[in-house]
Amino acid sequence: MLTDFITKQMQAWATNPKPPELTLNRQLYLLLKQAIQEKNLRAGECLPSSRSLAQDLGLARNTVMSAMSQLEAEGFLETRQGSGTYVRYKLPAHVRLKGKKKTAPSTSDTPRAISKRGTHLLKQAMADELEIQPFTQGFPDFSPFPLTLWQRLQNKHWRLSYADMLDYNDTGGFMPLKRAIAQYLRMSRNMSLEDEQVIITTGTQQSLSLCATLLSDPDDTVWVEDPLYWGAAQTFRASGLCMHGIPTDIQGLNIAHSEHAPTARMIYVTPSHQYPTGGILSLERRHTLLQRCHDMQAWVLEDDYDSEFRFAGQAMSSLHGLDVHDRVFYMGTFSKALYPGIKMAYLVVPLPWVQAFKRAHYDLHRPGLMHQQVAMAEFIELGHFHTTIRNARQHYEERRQALLQALTPCLGRHASISGAEQGLHLCVHLPPHVDDVALAQLAHTYGLTVRALSRYTITRKNLRGLVIGYGYAPLAAIQQDGLVLAELILRNLQQTEPAPVGRTS
Amino acid sequence: MLTDFITKQMQAWATNPKPPELTLNRQLYLLLKQAIQEKNLRAGECLPSSRSLAQDLGLARNTVMSAMSQLEAEGFLETRQGSGTYVRYKLPAHVRLKGKKKTAPSTSDTPRAISKRGTHLLKQAMADELEIQPFTQGFPDFSPFPLTLWQRLQNKHWRLSYADMLDYNDTGGFMPLKRAIAQYLRMSRNMSLEDEQVIITTGTQQSLSLCATLLSDPDDTVWVEDPLYWGAAQTFRASGLCMHGIPTDIQGLNIAHSEHAPTARMIYVTPSHQYPTGGILSLERRHTLLQRCHDMQAWVLEDDYDSEFRFAGQAMSSLHGLDVHDRVFYMGTFSKALYPGIKMAYLVVPLPWVQAFKRAHYDLHRPGLMHQQVAMAEFIELGHFHTTIRNARQHYEERRQALLQALTPCLGRHASISGAEQGLHLCVHLPPHVDDVALAQLAHTYGLTVRALSRYTITRKNLRGLVIGYGYAPLAAIQQDGLVLAELILRNLQQTEPAPVGRTS
Repeated sequence: MLTDFITKQMQAWATNPKPPELTLNRQLYLLLKQAIQEKNLRAGECLPSSRSLAQDLGLARNTVMSAMSQLEAEGFLETRQGSGTYVRYKLPAHVRLKGKKKTAPSTSDTPRAISKRGTHLLKQAMADELEIQPFTQGFPDFSPFPLTLWQRLQNKHWRLSYADMLDYNDTGGFMPLKRAIAQYLRMSRNMSLEDEQVIITTGTQQSLSLCATLLSDPDDTVWVEDPLYWGAAQTFRASGLCMHGIPTDIQGLNIAHSEHAPTARMIYVTPSHQYPTGGILSLERRHTLLQRCHDMQAWVLEDDYDSEFRFAGQAMSSLHGLDVHDRVFYMGTFSKALYPGIKMAYLVVPLPWVQAFKRAHYDLHRPGLMHQQVAMAEFIELGHFHTTIRNARQHYEERRQALLQALTPCLGRHASISGAEQGLHLCVHLPPHVDDVALAQLAHTYGLTVRALSRYTITRKNLRGLVIGYGYAPLAAIQQDGLVLAELILRNLQQTEPAPVGRTS
Repeated sequence: MLTDFITKQMQAWATNPKPPELTLNRQLYLLLKQAIQEKNLRAGECLPSSRSLAQDLGLARNTVMSAMSQLEAEGFLETRQGSGTYVRYKLPAHVRLKGKKKTAPSTSDTPRAISKRGTHLLKQAMADELEIQPFTQGFPDFSPFPLTLWQRLQNKHWRLSYADMLDYNDTGGFMPLKRAIAQYLRMSRNMSLEDEQVIITTGTQQSLSLCATLLSDPDDTVWVEDPLYWGAAQTFRASGLCMHGIPTDIQGLNIAHSEHAPTARMIYVTPSHQYPTGGILSLERRHTLLQRCHDMQAWVLEDDYDSEFRFAGQAMSSLHGLDVHDRVFYMGTFSKALYPGIKMAYLVVPLPWVQAFKRAHYDLHRPGLMHQQVAMAEFIELGHFHTTIRNARQHYEERRQALLQALTPCLGRHASISGAEQGLHLCVHLPPHVDDVALAQLAHTYGLTVRALSRYTITRKNLRGLVIGYGYAPLAAIQQDGLVLAELILRNLQQTEPAPVGRTS
């Protein structure tokens, strides 16, 4: 049955002209991985020998052995001496078992009844593209997270104070957790704040939604980076706001381009590691931005995600740390430093508005899950947060280096990298003639999830590139798949390079 | 120090004409309880003997003994034979320890920078009124919830499938949980649905927010019950909608009053137990409402909270169960059946829109906390959900009876009760000349949290009454405090009754 499945798919690939020539080795690797992930090959199951598999499939034995050894390096298979090759019982932490792939719904399926706002939102939805595999962006490595300790802390505290753990919380969060976060921000982000200014939310989108609701009215303008983080864009759309994009470059949002922009109520920025290009907002631009905000009486929404992972150079002070006019709402999250599903983040509110934000937060969101907040407070206090980040940073540094090395061959006159100094992803910039959406789709047929840079922009029609994450997949996968990705980019650049245009006098 | 605190407060009460005469017994009860909750009397601490306390405070020993025995009945104190009276180490589940009471911020504190939408929202915020004590509405009894089992289920499954538990979820929720909920709804709510139509959310407000975002645009009209659930109102405000109130009575929302209403995009109803009046939407009105919706091409948002707790009569079919035009978005929650802080609820979406709602839900909210969903699936499948509800219903039935009995003396020509057949609260209706806000504040000085009915209305200026919860506090507290509450209501009715007006020809 396994060989049937593989043979059939390989034949399909051979006859279908659309997906480009995958090497036979790569084809087999992808199909075996798919079989494991879709549980057609189950945990503990013994694979046919490479010899018999090669014979059944009509492939060279070397081809089969190469595919199997890559899967072994990535933790899918294990060889037991003298017994054979088996699917591992304990698959690596980054592997997700999944059902058969569903076809993604097209936006034309959206039924007419959906509102204008809803239609707009759905058209921009990137949710169904988020298959988690090598190079998916925004996903951390789960493996360094000390899950057993985490569970123990939760269990312990849950028992201590029964009613408070099970009820809603109307104080903006568990006080010792706010204290621990404030302390972390003072030390790491050069911020000056009182513990009381921290409000615990379920994620940066909830933090943003709260700011949008309290600080703006429908049809107000918010300045955003162009290109920008789609999660923020969706929250602003849901809140009825108009977005005005300000171009970014390697130094982040360039306020000089805002001369003719409509007056903003808020400015949303990701200064530590601009999403998606990875630019770091320069100190000079930070000061200019704050001054402009003050003049315009606008608010800064500072989304400081990825600030934990800096690999080169000195960490820059947060906008919040530089602000003297109480104009910055600062937000951070545990979803990247620990794990995404934790649903815990924080919003730092300027002192005069703390009370208002706490009330609205309780009224709109009814925060709960207090046992998790209590556990997190202790997790930070005991130093585990620090250790987890430090360990993760080492993993990411290795992966980052591996990816940079793999991508080297395709860089040069037409392609460059930005955003590799910090965070969990980088961006390869490509010339305007490249169809980056098609390139991303092509990569997907190779089992790689990268995103087209052009998908993130509001008005910059010439922007092309790939956004590539290195947080999630293990080093071996990054190394192998990095080469594949580089090859795809290089081939695309060579194929699509426009003919040189002769000079005319 | 304890006697100092008590003496001082009692003197303040004696000289301050504002709070009405509390009996000395009641005063002492409240002050001792306050001392325990604010940890001035700590767990395990031995109280002075009733004799010496009486002497120190200059009270009759009977007064002291009566206050102490009530606190013992409610689980705050325990008498150890021959040793004395102690603060219990394990306080009852419903007791919340708290800091010194903060003064609630007044809405005039709202700084100017807050937007129009935000200001409106904050003016309506009821968050700071929600002190949890006898008669607080919307809070269940935590004690029947099998916490140890619940923890065990979570721990067990978390280990099973590492990556899936820690990641976001883009499928609208854990499939077996959706299946379990769908099965429950088919059995209990007469609904016909596919498992796939269930989407797991973090609460009814998130369910509502998702509906508002996808089904409406800012400035669209939503019809709501008048009076209505403030949480829904706040969500609609945040979403930029206009609310048009339709009066409700004992049979729920009366669609006959909608003749001159602007066309609605959505209609929000709480048919099982109208919040706050407790009316149950009659079958006839259910059909009329659905027909009207169909004619107007509007959507029904059916918030079926409290449907688990019916004490009298036959359970009515849900609107979803009666609908034949796919116009009903149905929502339920686990926060009342299990515990509020669980942050788990569900939205049933008509089949044509499931895909759109799942995508937007993932894009806007990035659902996580999957270990909890996995545990809940098993919790339901193994029958624990059913058992927990059944046990809780017995508790509530006793408390409901006790409250009804306690309130009997104040009912009659000027006061009546609605909403006692179902759910966790009832509503005492009072004549228009009663200042129900002042009455609720008065009750608060007695350590009771009831809410003024007039706070929930949009346009019905004559509506007066008290919304009284019986879910949270134990039977002993309901019995004792019910008498106090009845006395307060009765006294208010007697004092404020307008002089009879002679007939004029």
